[in-house]
Amino acid sequence: MTEEPNPESPGSTSEKTFSPLRFVEGHLEILDQTRLPHEEHWLVCSTPEPVAEAIRRLSVRGAPAIGVAAAWGLALGLRGVPREQAGERFAATYRLLLETRPTAVNLRWALDRGREVFDRALGAGEDPGEALAAWAHRVQRRDVEANREIGRHGASLFRAGEKVLTHCNTGALATAGFGTALGVVTRAWEEGNVEEVWVDETRPLLQGARLTSWELGRLGIPYRIVTDSSAGALMAEGRVDRVVVGADRIAANGDTANKVGTYPLAVLADRHGIPFHVAAPLSTIDPTAANGREIPIEERRREEVTSISGHPVAPEDAEALNLAFDVTPAELIGAIVTDAGVLRPPFEESIAEALSRASPTTEGEER
Amino acid sequence: MTEEPNPESPGSTSEKTFSPLRFVEGHLEILDQTRLPHEEHWLVCSTPEPVAEAIRRLSVRGAPAIGVAAAWGLALGLRGVPREQAGERFAATYRLLLETRPTAVNLRWALDRGREVFDRALGAGEDPGEALAAWAHRVQRRDVEANREIGRHGASLFRAGEKVLTHCNTGALATAGFGTALGVVTRAWEEGNVEEVWVDETRPLLQGARLTSWELGRLGIPYRIVTDSSAGALMAEGRVDRVVVGADRIAANGDTANKVGTYPLAVLADRHGIPFHVAAPLSTIDPTAANGREIPIEERRREEVTSISGHPVAPEDAEALNLAFDVTPAELIGAIVTDAGVLRPPFEESIAEALSRASPTTEGEER
Repeated sequence: MTEEPNPESPGSTSEKTFSPLRFVEGHLEILDQTRLPHEEHWLVCSTPEPVAEAIRRLSVRGAPAIGVAAAWGLALGLRGVPREQAGERFAATYRLLLETRPTAVNLRWALDRGREVFDRALGAGEDPGEALAAWAHRVQRRDVEANREIGRHGASLFRAGEKVLTHCNTGALATAGFGTALGVVTRAWEEGNVEEVWVDETRPLLQGARLTSWELGRLGIPYRIVTDSSAGALMAEGRVDRVVVGADRIAANGDTANKVGTYPLAVLADRHGIPFHVAAPLSTIDPTAANGREIPIEERRREEVTSISGHPVAPEDAEALNLAFDVTPAELIGAIVTDAGVLRPPFEESIAEALSRASPTTEGEER
Repeated sequence: MTEEPNPESPGSTSEKTFSPLRFVEGHLEILDQTRLPHEEHWLVCSTPEPVAEAIRRLSVRGAPAIGVAAAWGLALGLRGVPREQAGERFAATYRLLLETRPTAVNLRWALDRGREVFDRALGAGEDPGEALAAWAHRVQRRDVEANREIGRHGASLFRAGEKVLTHCNTGALATAGFGTALGVVTRAWEEGNVEEVWVDETRPLLQGARLTSWELGRLGIPYRIVTDSSAGALMAEGRVDRVVVGADRIAANGDTANKVGTYPLAVLADRHGIPFHVAAPLSTIDPTAANGREIPIEERRREEVTSISGHPVAPEDAEALNLAFDVTPAELIGAIVTDAGVLRPPFEESIAEALSRASPTTEGEER
């Protein structure tokens, strides 16, 4: 397994970004996001098991980052495995990783692309572990490139002096670098069009309060954290000019699954005539899901709601329901900003067109 | 100052209620809600200063409970004060208590009623401290009676097997006993019409997770806590039949200020055709505010957002905006359930009519 230079390097604001995943000395290192913003701790993974565990417990999260981590998980799983055991090992590693999170489509996307790489390497008599590692490097680099494209397309929608509201974390941390929705905000800020960012804290796991604020602070972009239920008051007072969110899975008709709380934002934005955009790479689109009803929604542990950072905030025997995502119907989405450009309604058509433009070869091998 | 029996006594479900305020051996005892659900600690107040402090730091909260606490604060302030100092002392106590919270109209309502009681006592040659204490007892008792009426009227709107969503805490803890919106839910449950209660956790101070769940647990009413941003997903899935919330101030046209997050619930309920009710005593109506724009909205400390139970959840230097309330426009409210009955749109008329029916004498002396 070879090392390649980190696709991110220091420089202008956009270039202050970084990757929460890095391949160093034969190990995948994962920035443990459960410990942010208080501590920058890197998990060192030399097998797929700790990668799967890191995905499961949200040490690495965000649909694109999960996809990249899964690619690395496959590469680690096949490293040094004899040819005759490779098929069985691949199947076991694929299953292990697939079962970590149900909603993010990038996970299955990466695993299925990995299977193609694996099959091709075996067929060509190459070492499948080496082939998967080289591919994982490419997946990681391509994700950053895709995000920069998303940022460029999304920023073109902004006008001067905007106050933007975002939800959850969609920055460098949620991807291989630069971010999706937060990448759009970053680019728009570089272009002088962002006055301030409203950061939804994003209960239960506080990805906004913990992670988005941390990233925006690093980038020097002015922000304020608000509770998730503040958006209505802010919009009613005319203090929100645009909402930009990420996506965990986008159905063929544009219905979008994203962090719970996204749908209420879309309904409120609609009422107040505020543009509402989804920003995600094409790989987040699941053409096999005709609409949002076909997207499985993950329910997570009640303890994420009844305690915060390990401290109970409810009676000991309290019941709770912890829906991780909700579905925003396409009719409430003004634009889906992708690496292939800004898609507009009717999304059934614009999505199909964008997917057909993406070359199947590049798709299979490189993205 | 005389003691009167607690208006609540054990018995049926409704009668499992209690008051977070009790007058015992010449002291006002306040159940410190900041320590719930982990600890039942009572603050003992023999002067108005700790009462004001308890209101300010939310040891006692909820518009009706604040009103009752303020009544007791006046009584404690005037206790044993010589006649010649009474006017000055009353003015200072009034000011001290008024400045604790800006949004709850019941606070000013109680203080202004107290001024009438004070003036009348002075004019009649009575001891103003004694007169205020007797009045505070009546205010407390009347609040419970009003809440039972609210519960009775509100429960009549329910049908069998309803799943009800509520926000913040509007139970016995928020009042002198029984509660407003949660009193409606309690009564409807007694009548066999509630299947389950969705309890919004209510960030930043988690009154739902900490207090409403604690009260529902005591009453044996099935509930589940959800994050505030889950309502959209629950409604979209058909899992909410009704929303009932309280109010901190209701304008003459029906616009309602309540805990931040109420307005998004109303917008979502409207989209999904789900009945949305406000439950509050007539004393929460502020006829001097023509509409919601005239209601001042309290901004609280950023630390309530950036840390939870004293544990930081954001970068140390993170900025935050902490709006305590929002305003729900009357057009989104299906019914305002009061002690004088269920008010329906157009609220400008139904509110004016209900207020004119309330006898000014009773109003001034007793409510």
